[in-house]
Amino acid sequence: MLGRLTGVALIGLALPAMAGEVTTFTLDNGLEAVVIENHRAPVVVHMLWYRVGSADEPPGRSGIAHFLEHLMFKGTDTRASGEFSQIVELNGGTDNAFTSLDYTGYFQRVAADRLDLMMELEADRMRNLQMTEEDVATERDVIIEERNQRVENDPGAIFGEQRRAVQYFNHPYRIPIIGWRHEMETLTREDALEFYRRFYAPNNAVLVVAGDVEPDEVRRLAEEHYGPLAPTPDLAPRVRPAEPPQLAERRLTYADPRVAQPYVIRTYLAPERDPGAQEKAAALTYLAEILGGGTTSVLARKLQFETQTAVFTTAFYDGTALDDTTFGVAVVPVEGVSLEEAEAAMDRVLAEFMAEGIDDAQFERIRFQIRAAEIYAQDDTQGLARRYGEGMTSGLTAADIEAWPAVLDAVTKEDVMAAAAELFDRRRAVTGWLTAPATEPAEAIQ
Amino acid sequence: MLGRLTGVALIGLALPAMAGEVTTFTLDNGLEAVVIENHRAPVVVHMLWYRVGSADEPPGRSGIAHFLEHLMFKGTDTRASGEFSQIVELNGGTDNAFTSLDYTGYFQRVAADRLDLMMELEADRMRNLQMTEEDVATERDVIIEERNQRVENDPGAIFGEQRRAVQYFNHPYRIPIIGWRHEMETLTREDALEFYRRFYAPNNAVLVVAGDVEPDEVRRLAEEHYGPLAPTPDLAPRVRPAEPPQLAERRLTYADPRVAQPYVIRTYLAPERDPGAQEKAAALTYLAEILGGGTTSVLARKLQFETQTAVFTTAFYDGTALDDTTFGVAVVPVEGVSLEEAEAAMDRVLAEFMAEGIDDAQFERIRFQIRAAEIYAQDDTQGLARRYGEGMTSGLTAADIEAWPAVLDAVTKEDVMAAAAELFDRRRAVTGWLTAPATEPAEAIQ
Repeated sequence: MLGRLTGVALIGLALPAMAGEVTTFTLDNGLEAVVIENHRAPVVVHMLWYRVGSADEPPGRSGIAHFLEHLMFKGTDTRASGEFSQIVELNGGTDNAFTSLDYTGYFQRVAADRLDLMMELEADRMRNLQMTEEDVATERDVIIEERNQRVENDPGAIFGEQRRAVQYFNHPYRIPIIGWRHEMETLTREDALEFYRRFYAPNNAVLVVAGDVEPDEVRRLAEEHYGPLAPTPDLAPRVRPAEPPQLAERRLTYADPRVAQPYVIRTYLAPERDPGAQEKAAALTYLAEILGGGTTSVLARKLQFETQTAVFTTAFYDGTALDDTTFGVAVVPVEGVSLEEAEAAMDRVLAEFMAEGIDDAQFERIRFQIRAAEIYAQDDTQGLARRYGEGMTSGLTAADIEAWPAVLDAVTKEDVMAAAAELFDRRRAVTGWLTAPATEPAEAIQ
Repeated sequence: MLGRLTGVALIGLALPAMAGEVTTFTLDNGLEAVVIENHRAPVVVHMLWYRVGSADEPPGRSGIAHFLEHLMFKGTDTRASGEFSQIVELNGGTDNAFTSLDYTGYFQRVAADRLDLMMELEADRMRNLQMTEEDVATERDVIIEERNQRVENDPGAIFGEQRRAVQYFNHPYRIPIIGWRHEMETLTREDALEFYRRFYAPNNAVLVVAGDVEPDEVRRLAEEHYGPLAPTPDLAPRVRPAEPPQLAERRLTYADPRVAQPYVIRTYLAPERDPGAQEKAAALTYLAEILGGGTTSVLARKLQFETQTAVFTTAFYDGTALDDTTFGVAVVPVEGVSLEEAEAAMDRVLAEFMAEGIDDAQFERIRFQIRAAEIYAQDDTQGLARRYGEGMTSGLTAADIEAWPAVLDAVTKEDVMAAAAELFDRRRAVTGWLTAPATEPAEAIQ
């Protein structure tokens, strides 16, 4: 991801301090706010993040979090359907929204002097949303079509859904964010309104404002627009059904005639960043880079270059989650190498890695890469705003997010090997094969 | 299961009519009742079945249905803790209770003239249960110890739990009836009371009385004791999250040093008996017998006798369930045959079965066995009562249960092969290996 930089160029980079002042405040109604100053351009990013995602949906109502995100662009008591985005556009801004397992976020990027208006609009739809039965029926068709496009038309996405369902026995992370189709088809206006009334409230939201703003002014505007909104009383703590011990190694094969490029992928249940305890997640962040981050990684070197086993290899980990997340490795074999052989090669590389440990030069190169990425991240105001919003709706505090670059920088080789030893337990893993169907029809039956 | 009988002895058996008159009635408060007369002995079985099982539990509260079953033996407004079972015993009776995925049942067998008293006791605890915090704490220890005994001490049971969790992506049948331990540990008195108040109500119960009784008298007593009980208003329809399409074949290996006898087992998602549509389930009942029901079955013949591959084989299916159930096959290999070889042999037998079809003589033998079993079932009053209770709390009507022997008897070879062709889709299957751990420590890591 940082292939342009050479190790040499990075030597001597200092540990990044957070550029741009970050301040926080909390309104009386529970709304938490983060202000990130950056006065280089007269632009502001206004983001409102709700502490609710697909993993907070009631049983059988999968997709409602994402459905509601769509419905948030309908009208309010005083605004017509679609007016929200029109106003943003007429003011030269852009807006968007996204739903994840743990959060739902809304953002606009506009000229700094339009912040007042953005807050007015966003605060209005936090508590005053209106939707007709027709809005709901139309938008339900839209999300089902979105599922068609993103999932049903993509064998890799179907494969991913089936793997997640097997990775988690009990936790709702097993359910797709977009929803199971048969449940999406039954979502109603009442489902959306119940979800909205409960979770869309100032005491369940994080406001992030980043750019050419002064914290005092942001606070004044927030008090004016968000301050009068009523919190949801007795909002239950955010506790999802947890995983029981995972004791049995799992495997899964998905065959689809549309698969042109078969691959093997394995995900392990992995710890996430916890408030005040981000060290393991930091070590796993290194591990993913060391094993699968680009052409100098262990998997790439051994399977793409030393042997011509794979056309592509990767390892991936994202620790920003409220509950246990996953760490993955994948190998896309060259033509003529079977998935069985590819998996055996992957296992061999992992076993060698555990036996041989980490090369000093590679470790320092990756430390510098991560340090550089953290420095550049400070310049990306919108990305920084996203970090705060995402982190603070995934169980972390502003202090954890601020501490993250230093926690990353303190990781040692020993930390990475210890994290790897704990992670690589096949009993908590799902190994998946994505493949085209066998040509023998006998394979289809039994 | 009917090994004592020879095919010859069964020829000429007529299709069984339900012996013992079965009558039904419903009280004004919604309580459904079934009366099965059998005057051969002055004994009565009194059963109360609730339409609630572990699959109806709230998320994160697994084990609450079974926990409440235990707590039902504590006191009521007018009876002391433990008094219920003492009274039954002092009256020469026996009593018991059971919790399943779809139902919770309570029964007593006593002299026929004690029916009045049994109803009084059972009606009392339907709405007037009392439990102290101490009762709850004590009994929670009991169910956790029950889990230790039944699950943690039994590698096969752990294996079964992990397989179920992978068989169902979305439906609560993936959760063990006894509960996940970490959730059982957090169950509270309030959890039990909420569950009790909602589900233990006349409009969610089926009364089954079988034995030396007259229907009119049973109705009079039921009206006296159960009639005054208030129903739960607005009891939601019993709809659980349904399975999305299962598209990817799954495998799972559980290794435990306590495993003395490894085996391979595969379960396929399978249709259950539906009201007015029991034909497929009837065909699958035959299929289980044909493939794995005893020493003349296809799996036993080919793997235990023609080749010495297995020490034991079986196939199993129970169609009495509210939602999609499973059909299973299993092979326990002889020493020296690996699980891989055992599975390959099992697959070969299944493929041969699909190609060769069913032997006429074997089919007729099994039809007669099933017919005989149905005839004998009519003589087993308690078993018959259980059939009605189980069926009527699993989505069936009394008429479906009465029709079941005739539906079974009408199954043809073609029905069985069609059901097998639909069933044997690996994409809806989980193949499990239960094994001792490999001796190489390298296997444990990665």
